[in-house]
Amino acid sequence: MSATYQDVREHAQRISGGLSPEEIARRLAPKHHEGPTRVPGSGSGHANPAVIDKRWALLPHAPAARAALADAASLADHERFAHNIENYIGTVKLPVGLAGPLRVNGIAAQGDYYVPLATTEAALVASYHRGANVITLAGGCTTLILSEGVSRAPAYAFKTLHEVGTFVVWCLQNLTELRAAAESTTRFGRVRDVRFTVEGNHVYVLVDYTTGDAAGQNMVTIATQAICDYVAAHCPIRPEYFFVEGNMSGDKKASAQSFLGVRGKKVSAEVRLPRKMVERHLHTTPEKMTEYWRMSAMGGVMSGTIGVQGHYANGLAALFIACGQDAACVSEAAVGITRFEMDLATDSLYAAVTLPNLIVGTVGGGTNLPSQRAGLEILGLAGTGHSRAFAEVCAGLALAGEISIIAALSAHHFAQAHARLARGRKADAAEAPPSAP
Amino acid sequence: MSATYQDVREHAQRISGGLSPEEIARRLAPKHHEGPTRVPGSGSGHANPAVIDKRWALLPHAPAARAALADAASLADHERFAHNIENYIGTVKLPVGLAGPLRVNGIAAQGDYYVPLATTEAALVASYHRGANVITLAGGCTTLILSEGVSRAPAYAFKTLHEVGTFVVWCLQNLTELRAAAESTTRFGRVRDVRFTVEGNHVYVLVDYTTGDAAGQNMVTIATQAICDYVAAHCPIRPEYFFVEGNMSGDKKASAQSFLGVRGKKVSAEVRLPRKMVERHLHTTPEKMTEYWRMSAMGGVMSGTIGVQGHYANGLAALFIACGQDAACVSEAAVGITRFEMDLATDSLYAAVTLPNLIVGTVGGGTNLPSQRAGLEILGLAGTGHSRAFAEVCAGLALAGEISIIAALSAHHFAQAHARLARGRKADAAEAPPSAP
Amino acid sequence: MSATYQDVREHAQRISGGLSPEEIARRLAPKHHEGPTRVPGSGSGHANPAVIDKRWALLPHAPAARAALADAASLADHERFAHNIENYIGTVKLPVGLAGPLRVNGIAAQGDYYVPLATTEAALVASYHRGANVITLAGGCTTLILSEGVSRAPAYAFKTLHEVGTFVVWCLQNLTELRAAAESTTRFGRVRDVRFTVEGNHVYVLVDYTTGDAAGQNMVTIATQAICDYVAAHCPIRPEYFFVEGNMSGDKKASAQSFLGVRGKKVSAEVRLPRKMVERHLHTTPEKMTEYWRMSAMGGVMSGTIGVQGHYANGLAALFIACGQDAACVSEAAVGITRFEMDLATDSLYAAVTLPNLIVGTVGGGTNLPSQRAGLEILGLAGTGHSRAFAEVCAGLALAGEISIIAALSAHHFAQAHARLARGRKADAAEAPPSAP
Amino acid sequence: MSATYQDVREHAQRISGGLSPEEIARRLAPKHHEGPTRVPGSGSGHANPAVIDKRWALLPHAPAARAALADAASLADHERFAHNIENYIGTVKLPVGLAGPLRVNGIAAQGDYYVPLATTEAALVASYHRGANVITLAGGCTTLILSEGVSRAPAYAFKTLHEVGTFVVWCLQNLTELRAAAESTTRFGRVRDVRFTVEGNHVYVLVDYTTGDAAGQNMVTIATQAICDYVAAHCPIRPEYFFVEGNMSGDKKASAQSFLGVRGKKVSAEVRLPRKMVERHLHTTPEKMTEYWRMSAMGGVMSGTIGVQGHYANGLAALFIACGQDAACVSEAAVGITRFEMDLATDSLYAAVTLPNLIVGTVGGGTNLPSQRAGLEILGLAGTGHSRAFAEVCAGLALAGEISIIAALSAHHFAQAHARLARGRKADAAEAPPSAP
Repeated sequence: MSATYQDVREHAQRISGGLSPEEIARRLAPKHHEGPTRVPGSGSGHANPAVIDKRWALLPHAPAARAALADAASLADHERFAHNIENYIGTVKLPVGLAGPLRVNGIAAQGDYYVPLATTEAALVASYHRGANVITLAGGCTTLILSEGVSRAPAYAFKTLHEVGTFVVWCLQNLTELRAAAESTTRFGRVRDVRFTVEGNHVYVLVDYTTGDAAGQNMVTIATQAICDYVAAHCPIRPEYFFVEGNMSGDKKASAQSFLGVRGKKVSAEVRLPRKMVERHLHTTPEKMTEYWRMSAMGGVMSGTIGVQGHYANGLAALFIACGQDAACVSEAAVGITRFEMDLATDSLYAAVTLPNLIVGTVGGGTNLPSQRAGLEILGLAGTGHSRAFAEVCAGLALAGEISIIAALSAHHFAQAHARLARGRKADAAEAPPSAP
Repeated sequence: MSATYQDVREHAQRISGGLSPEEIARRLAPKHHEGPTRVPGSGSGHANPAVIDKRWALLPHAPAARAALADAASLADHERFAHNIENYIGTVKLPVGLAGPLRVNGIAAQGDYYVPLATTEAALVASYHRGANVITLAGGCTTLILSEGVSRAPAYAFKTLHEVGTFVVWCLQNLTELRAAAESTTRFGRVRDVRFTVEGNHVYVLVDYTTGDAAGQNMVTIATQAICDYVAAHCPIRPEYFFVEGNMSGDKKASAQSFLGVRGKKVSAEVRLPRKMVERHLHTTPEKMTEYWRMSAMGGVMSGTIGVQGHYANGLAALFIACGQDAACVSEAAVGITRFEMDLATDSLYAAVTLPNLIVGTVGGGTNLPSQRAGLEILGLAGTGHSRAFAEVCAGLALAGEISIIAALSAHHFAQAHARLARGRKADAAEAPPSAP
Repeated sequence: MSATYQDVREHAQRISGGLSPEEIARRLAPKHHEGPTRVPGSGSGHANPAVIDKRWALLPHAPAARAALADAASLADHERFAHNIENYIGTVKLPVGLAGPLRVNGIAAQGDYYVPLATTEAALVASYHRGANVITLAGGCTTLILSEGVSRAPAYAFKTLHEVGTFVVWCLQNLTELRAAAESTTRFGRVRDVRFTVEGNHVYVLVDYTTGDAAGQNMVTIATQAICDYVAAHCPIRPEYFFVEGNMSGDKKASAQSFLGVRGKKVSAEVRLPRKMVERHLHTTPEKMTEYWRMSAMGGVMSGTIGVQGHYANGLAALFIACGQDAACVSEAAVGITRFEMDLATDSLYAAVTLPNLIVGTVGGGTNLPSQRAGLEILGLAGTGHSRAFAEVCAGLALAGEISIIAALSAHHFAQAHARLARGRKADAAEAPPSAP
Repeated sequence: MSATYQDVREHAQRISGGLSPEEIARRLAPKHHEGPTRVPGSGSGHANPAVIDKRWALLPHAPAARAALADAASLADHERFAHNIENYIGTVKLPVGLAGPLRVNGIAAQGDYYVPLATTEAALVASYHRGANVITLAGGCTTLILSEGVSRAPAYAFKTLHEVGTFVVWCLQNLTELRAAAESTTRFGRVRDVRFTVEGNHVYVLVDYTTGDAAGQNMVTIATQAICDYVAAHCPIRPEYFFVEGNMSGDKKASAQSFLGVRGKKVSAEVRLPRKMVERHLHTTPEKMTEYWRMSAMGGVMSGTIGVQGHYANGLAALFIACGQDAACVSEAAVGITRFEMDLATDSLYAAVTLPNLIVGTVGGGTNLPSQRAGLEILGLAGTGHSRAFAEVCAGLALAGEISIIAALSAHHFAQAHARLARGRKADAAEAPPSAP
């Protein structure tokens, strides 16, 4: 972004290659000739074989690729995907590996879990596997769900601050009706709180919901639209304009508000690893891991991260994909606090993670697709009644990953393992398998 | 996280359900009985059918799921996944939809692209499809790669500030050798710069690389390990300890340093949409979209986001998964600046996105797996020489998504489209298909 | 901080000058000879003339300076400073200028205020003066106090997450007692809310207070200590350790939590400036000021600020010093959102500021010192019952400053005014006096 | 800001008091009657006694205050303030206390300093005094200036990304001329680097300067205006509009970019305190102080601070005011990293602070005013050649404050000391005097 003039000079040469200024101008200019055919058939019947054929006919450059995506099973399954995709052309296959067992001592999750992880990054499963096993040896990790909720944040623009104030007072007087409007649209969603953030003549109304076992983003959108409709029909103070979401809910992005609220489930997971276990299984010491934690925490702070942690994103992305979660939510879920410290009283390493934005569900979204549901079933957590346990497993997995990668970094095995696993040399992943960085 | 006492009280009741304090204590306590069998066969030959059988034998709860993951083709392909996964048990299938054509006027990317998106979230493809088509109608988006590079940040702890200073001076005197050590490990990686960040008696050494057409995280890890090895062998000032990565490189996390540096490729994309096009195809006006932008920008700022944008994560996650990119990198890639404003001179909407952390590649990682390579081939961007064009397509896609979702929000079609598409009612996605929120 | 190797090389040469490595080593080494006399008399009677003499006797390098600090009036006043300073040696004199009148239309503040500003930065008063006058011409700014409160955040470390949960439940069951303990220490402080933030086996208890007309930091410290004492005496779950403040209250620092809470008073101020007024008095147009706002908002976002604003710190620091506020609180108070936009309906510029952390008071702290109290009296806001009005004036002043500086920047008068005023050329500050940057 | 509906309801009642909706509407409405007289005499001769009289005549509410501000000496000195204030009415007197001696082992600062601190907050001087003395006993703190520089960030808006690219290339080709234009305006300012940050069709040009012994904000504004003038006269690519500052320089605000750049001087200070010294003089242990550091660091992170530290603002504001620095710069200067850890090898506490934004000077600004210059003279650091030493003293002072306050918090003396000192009971500040929070 900001780059010194040397950087910029070298970059300009690299990028422009041998192109003349005229050629660069030609390339960057808008081009108003007619485009090729739009992808057809976004309407109903969008995924039948004839339409899929037409779509592939548009892709002349990739004839060899068709078999890889549009295999017979994917074509046969097209109806099952009808509510999850538009303009369907086949499926991409991600390899799934197992990590574990991971013992979780939570209120909801109880027992030993084999965790399915879908990734194409070498060493990732091996690293989480190692972390999970050492946690299990130590008696498992304790997990606690600290808070739950999902927000939508409709935003209203008024003429004046005075109108804003009057509007807020009206909302307070009509909270029962607003809540009823919202809850009329959903069997599982409940309004937990309503908050107001004023900025000049604008006001953002944060409506917080619980959403049962669904991740709930669609549920809260629809419910909040009902609130906006009620306001539009009944409120005597008319906004200049409004939107059902004013970008204050933290949806699909890391935000500093995470630590003062919650998005999905907020979960902590902790474990104590005795010194001997650290030495034998992780080839390092509690002291070195603690030193690493402190140094990496300050490194994170100076780079301007939200929270301080290592690589939650690796495990969460892999678990989310394997279990039909919304993979884009990794952007907000991979935020939190990792803390490692010496526990002198027990001569062990205390390790904890806290994730405020685990926006996950065991119903809805992609959880009913065949291979995704299989991921949840492997965990024993498919369907109603399991979202809290699933969130606890997520936190336990994040803890396993932090332990494994910090151990590898403090034992100086990090680069070696990558060289081995990623570049295809022989590896015994049980020995020293740090996570993909 | 921070929750008011009412919140906490209600949450405590919800979570504990009918459980007694004793039962809660029992659940949360570590449990030291022996665990079940570890997932076997993490060594070589890790993915042959016999080992896969053993793994499935561990998963008693999920017999029905096996066919969905471990289908014949996935079993037959096990060798192809050997360098991308450990403890393999099958594949998860994500449906892929096409968006486009998306016209990109970049130095590297030129022409009309059909963009493959892998997701399980209804309405996502339809929304990007709509945005891509309106961009194409307007002559395409212009894209520019503003910077390139990937960092590793080894961290050294010394006794004193004075030792830190002496160490930094030594590094400056030995830069040629450090660079040679790094570059000896890689055919494509080049050291672009070395930076130093001192914090008391700690120093973080940021080594910036270009990585050819690979995303390059493993490449820079291995190269930086060589620097650390050279330092260990030759530097007379001995650190108390050091690590090959001190968590300052922004790896797998959103960080504020994004806007002053780069992680992968930094790309801007822009387009002008004439008023008539906005009205006809997006059912709103440039003014309303501009109002939305302003309000959502302040909403983002107040929620503490890094940059201000809407939902890059949706499109990037779907494209990354479809094309063999590292899905966990969505955590850092989905950061940037979206800006919409009225262009009075042409009576059009000016829309631009700038993404500083597009950490993508067209070789290495998951790009050689069959269905992932198919994604790149559909774009015409598989293999060497295409990473810049791929990054430009990513930026164009992000722009398409912002246009479509902001249009939907400002036209009040957002909630309706979700209700239709996600809940399975009939839909013509070409009409009003906003993105999954 | 992070600096490229060229930077570092040049810096190292600049800093080390002609010093040899040995001389540098000598300078940086700890030196264990005995130090000179401690500043005497920190106990009672700390400010009598004899002790002041002894202190000056320690300062051989500054004989000429004594008269400037320890003038007769300052010596005579020593008793009045006894509760505001230790180790007293005299007073520093800051020049005070008047800006205004500034018309404020608030619930508490009503009317036209001449605002005293203490600063040594040329052009600062002139710039705020210009902004205040144009606001007054436009009918004054409307202000609204959106929230009030000050927090203390004691932090407790336990052995386990389970103990944390049990502790939180105990607190909920004993809230009445905790509140009573806190309120027993203060006539004016009231507990408004108690919140809990858990991170692994640590819990931060955010106790929110209202503090009457005092800024209240000491009040809430003492009250929270009483809570900690009650916990220590009665709570059966014993922490490993605890502290009365765990650095989560935002005390003396900018923090992203500002926009979700409040520290002191949260206030918005707004005004509409007709086009003609902008042209005549500010020599620019609403459009240019709006363009500036948008560009500077994104500039702020990319530099990683909390909120987006220009230079609240200038006016707030000057007003705080003139009125006996805690000048260090500028670090947290100078955070907020400035928004400028065209109001097409009235062909005017809409300008608003929102400041969430106005931690101010009209009693206590430095407000009773003679010249500081004079500042409050000039405003008509000294003593009990005026803290809300004072906060509204602060917000109006911040708005005046943003208007004036953005006008100067968009009229390209910014650098010129600095050249004139700061370098001592003739100036008519009423004409084009932008604020010190 | 965001407040729950209960909060808002209670707040609305508190704020509105007994006022009717009509009365509230009346108060908040703009009022277009003519205002009272503007503060007169902003032009030349602005501070002569006759004009000062006229200004006081405007302030009917504050007759008694006049003597406190407009004492004879302040009136007599009016000429000396002519380049530092407009609309002068007198001076505010802040009490100054001495802390120390503080031993600093820097390249520039060498020896034992008595540090003048101007504040009205009880306990502040006592706390820094204690910290300074324990540092001195331990051999003094080592300080190192890690980087130097001040930026201005002019911002240019173009029609297209392509024009932005062409403009940047033109700047690179004309860097010598741009630099010459800037440096022609100043004897001491030097252009250190030029950086570019592109956001769509906008580009921010960060011009980094060194500024000799001046803080330099005005110097770099004027120099950068010369760059803008050169561009306006010679660059063939015409911007739509531009501004001499696009709010990316971090001026007067905390920003995350601090840790990747510098604003003023970046300085680290460190000390090792032997266990016995901690026990005897601070009444706590190294372990407890380290526990506090860790807990407070995570507290800061979760509240969304930039960097992690305790209360730099207290000492910096007091020192800045005493020494003629720009007090508003506390907003950016009070950012940094504090780190405390056990040094097992020497059984001592290692404590370090790193401040990236010490924007200070020993010439220019308020440094020539009589009582402010006295502050610098007490330190032996008035005038040319002393700015680096002054910055090192700032860092040492910040370290002293962190040590003292963390000791008080970990010894549970924090609240007690406040009760004693602030509420006027007897105190021996040398014993247990923690800083004002």
